[in-house]
Amino acid sequence: MEEIVRQVMAAVEKSGLVEIEVSARHVHLTQSDFEIIFGKGKTMTPKRDLSQPGQYLAAERVDIIGPKRKMTNVAVLGPVRKDTQVELSRSDCIALGVKAPLRESGDVAGSGQIRIEGPCGAIDIPQGVIVAHKHIHVPTEMAEKLGLHDKQRVSVEAITERPVVFKDVIIRVSDNFRFRMHVDFDEANGADISGFTLGKIIR
Amino acid sequence: MEEIVRQVMAAVEKSGLVEIEVSARHVHLTQSDFEIIFGKGKTMTPKRDLSQPGQYLAAERVDIIGPKRKMTNVAVLGPVRKDTQVELSRSDCIALGVKAPLRESGDVAGSGQIRIEGPCGAIDIPQGVIVAHKHIHVPTEMAEKLGLHDKQRVSVEAITERPVVFKDVIIRVSDNFRFRMHVDFDEANGADISGFTLGKIIR
Repeated sequence: MEEIVRQVMAAVEKSGLVEIEVSARHVHLTQSDFEIIFGKGKTMTPKRDLSQPGQYLAAERVDIIGPKRKMTNVAVLGPVRKDTQVELSRSDCIALGVKAPLRESGDVAGSGQIRIEGPCGAIDIPQGVIVAHKHIHVPTEMAEKLGLHDKQRVSVEAITERPVVFKDVIIRVSDNFRFRMHVDFDEANGADISGFTLGKIIR
Repeated sequence: MEEIVRQVMAAVEKSGLVEIEVSARHVHLTQSDFEIIFGKGKTMTPKRDLSQPGQYLAAERVDIIGPKRKMTNVAVLGPVRKDTQVELSRSDCIALGVKAPLRESGDVAGSGQIRIEGPCGAIDIPQGVIVAHKHIHVPTEMAEKLGLHDKQRVSVEAITERPVVFKDVIIRVSDNFRFRMHVDFDEANGADISGFTLGKIIR
């Protein structure tokens, strides 16, 4: 059975179809911010692996506070990073009263501000809040097969009952990636993406 | 100045560009449901005209209650209709714990259930909750100019910093319509549609 699934997925991927995953709001922390929030000398506790190798959902959770409201129990993703970053949907931004630019993950210069709180302390980040630009993680081998290259922009048609074509989707290529498209909850809800959903890559 | 705006909009529309308006969650009521909620013999109070001729935002507001939570102060749109109908986004449905199909306005048979409450009473509707199918109101004259017909399905590219092509957009033609595309807040937020936004109709 597993072998059949593997073969089907290989055939699907060769056809330029990619699984679309939905990213909920989440926080990445530096080690030093993690220690302010969770205690001196503490380290992140992996709870569940994510689809991208080495990435995990942490057992620790935080509250995030904007001018309009607080959201509690927000996911922290590990491992720790060189910059603290909060990824929100546009509707999260509106609810919190926070301004955030549409950015690629890691590109935090001049991005939005927010307060992050946990059991041992809080930080006010002067930048780091972004709305994540939709993107596809492409393993190097798959990129070669499909003729895709890093930083390329493509369109992707979500195959759902409420179809949209996502334009301006960023291709990211690395040996370490698993082949997945990532959209946020606004993009997903507007296209009724839930459960296992495929998208067709259009050059 | 008004004349210039009129001429620009006429040129824009002739190019197959349509203004995209965002519909927030709202409720349509029958006269009898209105009277249960707001009092025997009461009638709806127009507060502000909407873009479609004869349609208005009512001064009256309601609360809607699903299994998971309540949303207060929800807009009621007038005039009264032959069926009570609640239009929610998919994210509203998730927050409320309500199931609702993607439907055209007015097509409520077998749709979702919810409780609607106001100052004088409450109703539990056995059907009427829908997620509105994206659509374009096209005046008959404009439909002729653009070669569009009632019930046709088209695609529309939202011209924003976060572009998507909405597929399967329903064309509705009537002498009484003003030329406008309607999407809900999930669709709008996923495409960063806010303020004055145009979409390009693609056959």
